[in-house]
Amino acid sequence: MNMSRKDFVRGAALAGLGATLPLATPAIAQGRRELKMASAWVKNFPGFGTAAERLAQRITTMTDGRLSVRVFAAGELVPPFEVFDAVSTGTADLYHGVEFWWQGKSKAFNFFTTTPFGLTPTEIKSWVYYGGGQELWDELAANYNVKSFLVGNPGVQMGGWFRNEINSLDDFRGITMRMGGFGGEVIRRVGATPASIPGTEVYQALQSGAIDATEWVGPWNDLAKGFHQVAKFYYYPGWHEPSSNVSAGFNLDVWNELSAADREIIKVACQAENDEMEAEFHANNGSALDVLVTEQGVQLRAYSDDVLMALGQMSQEVVAEAASEDAFTRRVYDSYMAFHAEARRVTETSHQPFARARAMVFSAT
Amino acid sequence: MNMSRKDFVRGAALAGLGATLPLATPAIAQGRRELKMASAWVKNFPGFGTAAERLAQRITTMTDGRLSVRVFAAGELVPPFEVFDAVSTGTADLYHGVEFWWQGKSKAFNFFTTTPFGLTPTEIKSWVYYGGGQELWDELAANYNVKSFLVGNPGVQMGGWFRNEINSLDDFRGITMRMGGFGGEVIRRVGATPASIPGTEVYQALQSGAIDATEWVGPWNDLAKGFHQVAKFYYYPGWHEPSSNVSAGFNLDVWNELSAADREIIKVACQAENDEMEAEFHANNGSALDVLVTEQGVQLRAYSDDVLMALGQMSQEVVAEAASEDAFTRRVYDSYMAFHAEARRVTETSHQPFARARAMVFSAT
Repeated sequence: MNMSRKDFVRGAALAGLGATLPLATPAIAQGRRELKMASAWVKNFPGFGTAAERLAQRITTMTDGRLSVRVFAAGELVPPFEVFDAVSTGTADLYHGVEFWWQGKSKAFNFFTTTPFGLTPTEIKSWVYYGGGQELWDELAANYNVKSFLVGNPGVQMGGWFRNEINSLDDFRGITMRMGGFGGEVIRRVGATPASIPGTEVYQALQSGAIDATEWVGPWNDLAKGFHQVAKFYYYPGWHEPSSNVSAGFNLDVWNELSAADREIIKVACQAENDEMEAEFHANNGSALDVLVTEQGVQLRAYSDDVLMALGQMSQEVVAEAASEDAFTRRVYDSYMAFHAEARRVTETSHQPFARARAMVFSAT
Repeated sequence: MNMSRKDFVRGAALAGLGATLPLATPAIAQGRRELKMASAWVKNFPGFGTAAERLAQRITTMTDGRLSVRVFAAGELVPPFEVFDAVSTGTADLYHGVEFWWQGKSKAFNFFTTTPFGLTPTEIKSWVYYGGGQELWDELAANYNVKSFLVGNPGVQMGGWFRNEINSLDDFRGITMRMGGFGGEVIRRVGATPASIPGTEVYQALQSGAIDATEWVGPWNDLAKGFHQVAKFYYYPGWHEPSSNVSAGFNLDVWNELSAADREIIKVACQAENDEMEAEFHANNGSALDVLVTEQGVQLRAYSDDVLMALGQMSQEVVAEAASEDAFTRRVYDSYMAFHAEARRVTETSHQPFARARAMVFSAT
């Protein structure tokens, strides 16, 4: 089902352009083309589904319709976790999703989304653009005939909703928490039971007591889910997902057929989305957090240092073990962690101490 | 010297396109056009001058040369601080600079760059895109026939270079420090003497003892300046410039003449730059900080809490006083500070505690 060169030329012919215009630019000669986007999100899912639509619209507008991106929401073309395969095989031209969902193919995909105690949103884009991350990602994705880009980041997430307080590591032992991937393995090692539950069933599971806690995203999405109605304690920070990048992946044949101008338009549109999503989340998280705390009586709590230290040590183990599974994942891990060491130092002498000082000043006034 | 509609049509005719192509899209009908960018930076100034060049190249590539952006470095067309006026009057089509340089026209411009103890890079883009900031900025800039966008952020800056230690507020009293704008007024109120010195003369002034300290940008740019050779103590955080946005402003007549597709291309290219610059600085600051500390013996120091508290309280005074100067600046201030209150809370429950926890975990291993 790969879009072939024949389909491509036929598209141009159908548009009634091409041969009849001697002075036409290459873009015109190519005619108009529809790109099918397989989104992993429910239509209008705030911040994620809407970002997929916005990316599609931007590419369509920037090319004046020469490229028209048609969005298929989760399930319309393929189920959400199959969007990568759909693009790989050519059923879709691009996907909008999250790389760590493909970790069954290679654990290396995790590093292009997030890792526990890993890079922040600013740091991970620095690694991808300037630290060798994109080159490693290209090498990985090319194995599946895919070329991927960062297209957004919801910011450092919240730690999650708990029915009971977590005052020490002891309180983590024995609870069941909805958490997948590396984070799930980490909480298992400190004595909790990680549960894998579809997003649509989490509220009910938390309400019934089938689970004691759940992570989700941040105030904006969490408020919409209504978790505050069934769990009172809202913990931070989201140690398990400091930078849950969203990505767009293109079928490599389709990508290679595009003109240089159209490839630049798409790359730049993806990068603008990477800028936009973080802003949208930060703004909406602000007002949502205000509602949760001042109107809904949510108890906002910081994890204690002993809990964070234990989770942090287990996280280092879990991530290092994953890296040992194959040589390529090890290369990605080595690159990511070398960058992590330098990037942390910048954060710890700029963003973090600034935010701490500002909190001190404004809490005193 | 405003680019008029007549010039615009003539440009299209010169390109030999337009009337002869019955099926031509509007973009083709407009022909090729050169946009003059007045950059406020020396050519190839790392991170800033190079960003101006990159933005120009991206717009040129995305439009396949339909819009060709030609960059004039500082002084080539007009001196750096006159780039805004050059665009306002039509001598240039767009500038690449920093809004607080136009604060002589209105103090409100400061808020679109940075304020002491103000918004971080993530927060300020959230305010501009989602908190009403862009609308206020448009209203302000339209008074000068300009339309401006964010095009980058070097991250939370460093506090500056000092010849002697600053252990308490007493050590700030009596020193002369190169610092302008709101920050300069703040240090004046805690007993220091702010000095305004051109960038090219700062090294010499610090070496000779004419000044005791200087702020600059961050490790990447600071290392290039060589300040570590003449001042040993490098303080953080950069309380005076938590988010020194760079902006691109377009002549409003030129902007309004562009097609919808070209306006979208430019907006998206600007936004991609906003994403890119922060990444470039974070990555380069990491390696530069490593060189400064491990190879050059720089003493990296955090400002003490009593210093930060005093600077923070004075900052609130200085910014509030500026806001009282005129009604429009007050509106901008009110919007900015209302957003600041909500956005801080998000940062203080996500990025900041995450970075703190991570520092704790990794410093223990």
